[in-house]
Amino acid sequence: MNKFAIVLAAGKGTRMKSALPKVLHKVAGKTMLGHVLQNVSEIETAKRVVIVGHEADKVIATLPKGTQFVKQAEQLGTGHAVRIAADLLANEDGATLVIAGDTPLITGETLQALFDYHFEQKATATILTAIAPNPTGYGRIVRGSDQSVEKIVEQKDANDFEKNITEINTGTYVFDNKALFKALGEITTDNAQGEYYLTDVIEIFKKNNQIVAAHILEDFEESLGVNDRVALSQAEATMRTRINRTHMVNGVTLIDPATTYIEADVIIEPETIIEGNVTIKGRTFIGKNVLITNGSRIENSEIHSDCEVRNSTIEGSRMSVGSNAGPYAHLRPGTVLSEEVHVGNFVEVKGSTLGKGTKAGHLTYIGNATVGEKVNFGAGTITANFDGKNKFNTEIDDFAFIGSNSTIIAPLHIGKNALTAAGSVVTEDVPDEAVEIGRGKQVNKLGRAKKMPHYRGQ
Amino acid sequence: MNKFAIVLAAGKGTRMKSALPKVLHKVAGKTMLGHVLQNVSEIETAKRVVIVGHEADKVIATLPKGTQFVKQAEQLGTGHAVRIAADLLANEDGATLVIAGDTPLITGETLQALFDYHFEQKATATILTAIAPNPTGYGRIVRGSDQSVEKIVEQKDANDFEKNITEINTGTYVFDNKALFKALGEITTDNAQGEYYLTDVIEIFKKNNQIVAAHILEDFEESLGVNDRVALSQAEATMRTRINRTHMVNGVTLIDPATTYIEADVIIEPETIIEGNVTIKGRTFIGKNVLITNGSRIENSEIHSDCEVRNSTIEGSRMSVGSNAGPYAHLRPGTVLSEEVHVGNFVEVKGSTLGKGTKAGHLTYIGNATVGEKVNFGAGTITANFDGKNKFNTEIDDFAFIGSNSTIIAPLHIGKNALTAAGSVVTEDVPDEAVEIGRGKQVNKLGRAKKMPHYRGQ
Amino acid sequence: MNKFAIVLAAGKGTRMKSALPKVLHKVAGKTMLGHVLQNVSEIETAKRVVIVGHEADKVIATLPKGTQFVKQAEQLGTGHAVRIAADLLANEDGATLVIAGDTPLITGETLQALFDYHFEQKATATILTAIAPNPTGYGRIVRGSDQSVEKIVEQKDANDFEKNITEINTGTYVFDNKALFKALGEITTDNAQGEYYLTDVIEIFKKNNQIVAAHILEDFEESLGVNDRVALSQAEATMRTRINRTHMVNGVTLIDPATTYIEADVIIEPETIIEGNVTIKGRTFIGKNVLITNGSRIENSEIHSDCEVRNSTIEGSRMSVGSNAGPYAHLRPGTVLSEEVHVGNFVEVKGSTLGKGTKAGHLTYIGNATVGEKVNFGAGTITANFDGKNKFNTEIDDFAFIGSNSTIIAPLHIGKNALTAAGSVVTEDVPDEAVEIGRGKQVNKLGRAKKMPHYRGQ
Repeated sequence: MNKFAIVLAAGKGTRMKSALPKVLHKVAGKTMLGHVLQNVSEIETAKRVVIVGHEADKVIATLPKGTQFVKQAEQLGTGHAVRIAADLLANEDGATLVIAGDTPLITGETLQALFDYHFEQKATATILTAIAPNPTGYGRIVRGSDQSVEKIVEQKDANDFEKNITEINTGTYVFDNKALFKALGEITTDNAQGEYYLTDVIEIFKKNNQIVAAHILEDFEESLGVNDRVALSQAEATMRTRINRTHMVNGVTLIDPATTYIEADVIIEPETIIEGNVTIKGRTFIGKNVLITNGSRIENSEIHSDCEVRNSTIEGSRMSVGSNAGPYAHLRPGTVLSEEVHVGNFVEVKGSTLGKGTKAGHLTYIGNATVGEKVNFGAGTITANFDGKNKFNTEIDDFAFIGSNSTIIAPLHIGKNALTAAGSVVTEDVPDEAVEIGRGKQVNKLGRAKKMPHYRGQ
Repeated sequence: MNKFAIVLAAGKGTRMKSALPKVLHKVAGKTMLGHVLQNVSEIETAKRVVIVGHEADKVIATLPKGTQFVKQAEQLGTGHAVRIAADLLANEDGATLVIAGDTPLITGETLQALFDYHFEQKATATILTAIAPNPTGYGRIVRGSDQSVEKIVEQKDANDFEKNITEINTGTYVFDNKALFKALGEITTDNAQGEYYLTDVIEIFKKNNQIVAAHILEDFEESLGVNDRVALSQAEATMRTRINRTHMVNGVTLIDPATTYIEADVIIEPETIIEGNVTIKGRTFIGKNVLITNGSRIENSEIHSDCEVRNSTIEGSRMSVGSNAGPYAHLRPGTVLSEEVHVGNFVEVKGSTLGKGTKAGHLTYIGNATVGEKVNFGAGTITANFDGKNKFNTEIDDFAFIGSNSTIIAPLHIGKNALTAAGSVVTEDVPDEAVEIGRGKQVNKLGRAKKMPHYRGQ
Repeated sequence: MNKFAIVLAAGKGTRMKSALPKVLHKVAGKTMLGHVLQNVSEIETAKRVVIVGHEADKVIATLPKGTQFVKQAEQLGTGHAVRIAADLLANEDGATLVIAGDTPLITGETLQALFDYHFEQKATATILTAIAPNPTGYGRIVRGSDQSVEKIVEQKDANDFEKNITEINTGTYVFDNKALFKALGEITTDNAQGEYYLTDVIEIFKKNNQIVAAHILEDFEESLGVNDRVALSQAEATMRTRINRTHMVNGVTLIDPATTYIEADVIIEPETIIEGNVTIKGRTFIGKNVLITNGSRIENSEIHSDCEVRNSTIEGSRMSVGSNAGPYAHLRPGTVLSEEVHVGNFVEVKGSTLGKGTKAGHLTYIGNATVGEKVNFGAGTITANFDGKNKFNTEIDDFAFIGSNSTIIAPLHIGKNALTAAGSVVTEDVPDEAVEIGRGKQVNKLGRAKKMPHYRGQ
């Protein structure tokens, strides 16, 4: 049987207090709508339609290429939103999932199980339900003595008996497609809100003696609908738990998973240890036996096996096997550390390649440089790569020794085994094997300190 | 009817293991007593009296100006503590709140509801009670068959039936004022501890057929009394949840509210995103659309709209619209970043103003400087503002270009469009449009590196 | 009666997905086996035997000197593992604890209580049990109508009644020693797994009308057996809670104990305040009235009273009374800060002693230096202590003033009250009271900036 999906993404989400449409708020670095679309993509659907409305253009701009959408000009209720898709779907034979764009935690697995149950029950409608620890505020599922679904009762309409029901409507459904659109033609706005309620179709089905089933979610948390930023933070926490659990099961040690933020697309190999309060974002790969300590932030980078990242910030960089950074290092985009490179505290590297075994241990800025193997950067070294308008490159060959507090004014080339004396300014190329000196000569003025402000006497 | 309040702040709090009186320990940056006084101030009271005792002077020193207090020379029990206030209160008509200084979580709203209930019930005494998940250790509320309060039974005196009661005494009460002081005159130290128990007045009221009511707190957590530092950390967590929830409801995204520490007086505008493990203290304002990343600490500062604070420390500073700092930047008191200023990694700014669009990207110290617009500080720039005794100012005009690794020895002035060559020491003023050079000249000693210790051969 | 202990540490722990044997994975910085051995050491045992097997040599290498162990060549089940110890134990009179090396949370106190109960009950076997909130997956304890233990039923063999039993087997036991080894001779591999089950001895005892008792753990969490890294993170969290609770009870304020990682051997005196997200490892001592702020990491160090560690990394160092570091300071091994020393932002100190009252506030590297009292290091100072092959020492006497951006090329000596001019390179000794200057002289090229790339015009 064909499957279809309608994703409701037209609402404003007033309680988010945001200029951004609700479904574009992010959880684990991806929009809620993005999560829902990805989850829906895990079931094979013949058509997927996103209903957009509030700030439609912003929402459309985030849709994967080829996603079908329909604009709902006015927001007249969930029933109206679904009906908007009639032109695209009404004549199809099959079953249609209706899911809200603010339920990022409902998994593809759950959706598949929902369809399976729907078909198994030969139902006209199947409601995804959950058992709520505290059902107040939710629509309750009223079942008959044979356990079949009789109706959904909203909080405000529930009698005392119904208020005690803990099975609630998650707002996710599978419908027989043609029956859905037929019933949607019959619902009205004759209610307190003056809106078309999608749930009114249930009553129509019941009247027609069509089967309404309910599939109960095992995990209530999955059903969370995000209406404000409190719920957004809960979705974030659940997603974090879910992602981190997967990494742990795969053999990654997380010292404090509750405070470890790893986005969905990050790949981590086993035997790696990640301390608490680490942030790993974007398209990042972490190899085996890597240690990442507390406070580190890694984004769109490759950290290969046996590396150590100690409380550092790594962006758009590659750390090769056995290299290490930090604490307090900053690798900016375009940095490549070769094997066994050491970048130490208060060192920034940007758009540079450091050859195997090179060390830059302290208080150094390396920008737009191509550096050979086993080069040693003394503390306080600066590559001056900017003249106020353009950036220039520095080349440093193997085994060069850059003295502490050197200033290297690009563009220039420092040869193999060359040495720059500590405290020197380098304005021109330094040949292989040469020693460069470019600094003032020391003079001691004896006794002169007695006249200086810092003087404390004998 | 007049309202009065007595705040009990005389105890030592032995289990805190502290030289500091218990009520001066802080929760969310404010003393527990400070929280209680603020919560009490939300109801209109004709008089508020703080009972001080242990380390009275330390406690008094923290009281808001004009707060009335009475010293309890000896700590002879809660009944004695309240009686101490007789001179100030005994002849007043009205109702009197008695609250402990170690219950910082009981809100003003709760106190108002407690008074309202007291008046509604025409009670002589109204006990604030709560339903405890595990009531062991608390005084239990014994109610009669008509649900009226019969007595409070302490843990050690409770029979098996009473031990199963989950309604507990929070130690907060409203009394008819005159009835209270009259009854206090009748209580004795005829008990195991040899102390005057405030709760003994309840029995006296019951004997006199006066009404004793109980108002049940909705949220048990609110009733937490802090007796040790474990409870202190729980109060801290609850306060954090409460503060952070308010910000989220107001439209601020908190990625991980459980690890986000925001003190009570901080103001944050909507649409701002704050990652986990951020600390915001004191009188701080955060504008709209600000991004604050993990690890940042902000104290007594203004961060205006569209700023980014990336893992940085900001104290007593102002960041204007669209400016950004970090990662690993440190703005110390007296720093003003104008619009669109960029302060990058390993940069410290202190007591300085940076004009619009100025950039100091790397490894720089700017102290006591007045800097114009669009000035560029090269990496490794230092303003030498201290001679061992005094601090001196540096002035840098618009469009100046400070070469990398420059040392600027204050006091001095660098003119508009002026440039200091990389690696230079600046000891005197640099006129507008001038290029300053103050560095050694480069000499290359060919082949000399072969004799140097770093040499690795061909 | 003699006590013995057998610790099972032969398993691979397939679900850990690790090259490391399961029991060598760490919780709070110590291997799980190390925790179990320490907990066992709290009871007086005549003999302790560790059964090793998978990667036996790696496990043996971690055992405290003198620990007895037996190698289990093949892993044929828990019954087989215990039987392996027969040569060492079978002939002893007494009671034998059998405990798994992956249960790091079962305390010595619990083990003592288990032995006590065993003796009290005159039991042949006493099972340590717990009440599980969700018992699925555990072996259930089936008790008779007189509450005596009838048998242990594994999940897969449990009938519906038994599945509802919440008392579960923790896998920890005390046995009459001779009865244990006798019964072990009778068990077979006649079961689904083809393994020798230790629990089969229970049935044998019951058949012989020997007493089988069960001692119920008060705290279910204690019984956690670690089979994968999800459980490892749970053990880590429980251990953290336990350690941190002890510090709080002792008078240490932890602002957010859930995110504070303190290893088991750390000593902290009262009145110290530690913010969230702090890591304290190894053999570290923290004195009184210390403040440690968010993001700090301290390892194998002494931090004496009245110090402040602000978001810094401290390794193998000593901070004397009243000294302070950070934010963003890095003290590396061999650093000694005397009283009232200040080490500020972006400062690294390694293998150096700084005398009383000395300050190094900004962007400085001090390596292999012996520094006197009240020395002032200007911002950007570098000790150049490495020539590519060897490290050299720097000596700086009291009251010296090291100008900003100085480069000090070791080995050398800077005398008392001496001053190095800002931006100078120091290549030779500076006598007491002398002023050293070693820098280029300033030249202003007027109007030259107009030709430079940074020039923005009038």
